[in-house]
Amino acid sequence: MSTTNVQYYESQQCSTQWKAFLRAFSTEFASKGDISDLRAFMHQMGRTMAQEFSIGDGSSLSALEDSINQIWFQLNWGWAEIAEEADSLVIVHHVSPLKVAFGEDALTWSPALLEGIYAQWFDSLGMDKTLRLSQRKAALEEGQLFVFELKKQIEEPSYFTRR
Amino acid sequence: MSTTNVQYYESQQCSTQWKAFLRAFSTEFASKGDISDLRAFMHQMGRTMAQEFSIGDGSSLSALEDSINQIWFQLNWGWAEIAEEADSLVIVHHVSPLKVAFGEDALTWSPALLEGIYAQWFDSLGMDKTLRLSQRKAALEEGQLFVFELKKQIEEPSYFTRR
Amino acid sequence: MSTTNVQYYESQQCSTQWKAFLRAFSTEFASKGDISDLRAFMHQMGRTMAQEFSIGDGSSLSALEDSINQIWFQLNWGWAEIAEEADSLVIVHHVSPLKVAFGEDALTWSPALLEGIYAQWFDSLGMDKTLRLSQRKAALEEGQLFVFELKKQIEEPSYFTRR
Amino acid sequence: MSTTNVQYYESQQCSTQWKAFLRAFSTEFASKGDISDLRAFMHQMGRTMAQEFSIGDGSSLSALEDSINQIWFQLNWGWAEIAEEADSLVIVHHVSPLKVAFGEDALTWSPALLEGIYAQWFDSLGMDKTLRLSQRKAALEEGQLFVFELKKQIEEPSYFTRR
Repeated sequence: MSTTNVQYYESQQCSTQWKAFLRAFSTEFASKGDISDLRAFMHQMGRTMAQEFSIGDGSSLSALEDSINQIWFQLNWGWAEIAEEADSLVIVHHVSPLKVAFGEDALTWSPALLEGIYAQWFDSLGMDKTLRLSQRKAALEEGQLFVFELKKQIEEPSYFTRR
Repeated sequence: MSTTNVQYYESQQCSTQWKAFLRAFSTEFASKGDISDLRAFMHQMGRTMAQEFSIGDGSSLSALEDSINQIWFQLNWGWAEIAEEADSLVIVHHVSPLKVAFGEDALTWSPALLEGIYAQWFDSLGMDKTLRLSQRKAALEEGQLFVFELKKQIEEPSYFTRR
Repeated sequence: MSTTNVQYYESQQCSTQWKAFLRAFSTEFASKGDISDLRAFMHQMGRTMAQEFSIGDGSSLSALEDSINQIWFQLNWGWAEIAEEADSLVIVHHVSPLKVAFGEDALTWSPALLEGIYAQWFDSLGMDKTLRLSQRKAALEEGQLFVFELKKQIEEPSYFTRR
Repeated sequence: MSTTNVQYYESQQCSTQWKAFLRAFSTEFASKGDISDLRAFMHQMGRTMAQEFSIGDGSSLSALEDSINQIWFQLNWGWAEIAEEADSLVIVHHVSPLKVAFGEDALTWSPALLEGIYAQWFDSLGMDKTLRLSQRKAALEEGQLFVFELKKQIEEPSYFTRR
């Protein structure tokens, strides 16, 4: 697939109705605090936003993935894969509209919105309180791929999860 | 037209992609300050947002109204009427998606977004610096009608324009 | 509610992506047959289209109305009321996008699409084979209200149901 | 870019409001004639549809490409490249919603809609009457790429342009 198809698809990912508002929000909001503040606020918005949806079925990872993707599909927010690793659960979120909505510069904090959403959904499924969901690393694939992990919180908070 | 048609249309006014986000933003944001702070931030976002669009033609009120409505129509943000009164210019904004996007409780501050947009557009047309654009009164018609006025700022700032 | 709000809402009822296609379809299609042919084809398309959705719950009229409106709401195709009369069931469909999609001139045949959809849905619920669903009269409320009825077919087919 | 991102993007390419209608149209319509009839009708619909838009600027191929892509972008109908070859002008249309709207089986006739649109636009620019615009070959890239050419009509009509 050529770069320009990707560019075309990206440019169409965010509803015209709110694109200008979201850009303005991003610009003004980014001037109000440092990255950890911005991430904390986005994480909290994500938690609040998550409560508008109910994750139907958490009986298996595959059922959970389907429940989640049904929501993402309706919202046109991309799609997710959930995989088990040795000591964590990994959530990979593809082609969300965050980059085009909030801009490239916001990619250091905008994914905390998804972090908050996933954290809230896993909480609502009754996950072990010693587990913590956080973004694993910076955005990948030119801002179209975010990786989150759910794991026991033993080490010091990382750059991204510090709040 | 029956109430239920109006209700139906209102419910469809906000893009599904961002409705849950905007509700969450509204909830979290409203907890961060008093109404004048919220209005000041929304006004500023409106000014930033306005700069994504160019008002083609301000040669007459009617041309200006058309230019503005072309933007609103593309965004599905309702429609505006501009009228001259003795000592002010009045902008009436109908059926914006603000109520359904930010919720009814936010109607005391969410229209400051439109206030900021109109203020910026009139500034960009080179309006007299002694004039000030502000929301005239609270939302009307169950949150579907907002009235703004552009007039000489002589009296004390009103409740709504105080910042 | 003022006329212009209604006009505004109407103008936004049909997705920009397909409006021009649907208008062209309407123009070309209308030249291919008389009204009864056009209605027969639209009715058949409606039946085929209906099969893409499943009516969850027909256990009561109110549950059925909810099931149907959930579909219409997702599609942004307006909303329906179902009511029992002495010898028929009446379906009133409000603010569909048919008028803006296919044009005013098509209002003599475009509602046969909804007729086919409702006919198929009632068939799928196992309705009595002696019943027939048909449009009761021409479009009302400037093309924004259609009335269908499900009743025993005893008299001669009316203008609208003749095929 | 992984297959599944492409699949995701494809699945989101067609407005929910009309997807079921367009699928039903495709099913019913395909049963009404052979491929050349279907193509002729789609081509004619394309010509009618094209007249809803005006190609602003045909002063250069690049200006023309921009004018056309502005329309496609607003409609979310993909994007086009125009290139000159020795004896023809080639129009390559990427990632249109035709496949997801009308289905894979319709790819033998649905691109005639674009053929008609481009033919009408080139006619409106006053193109030489000896030139003819037609689809060069079957759909490529799994139905996401169509190639049209504008050239002197000397040989026998090909499979795709026969009518």
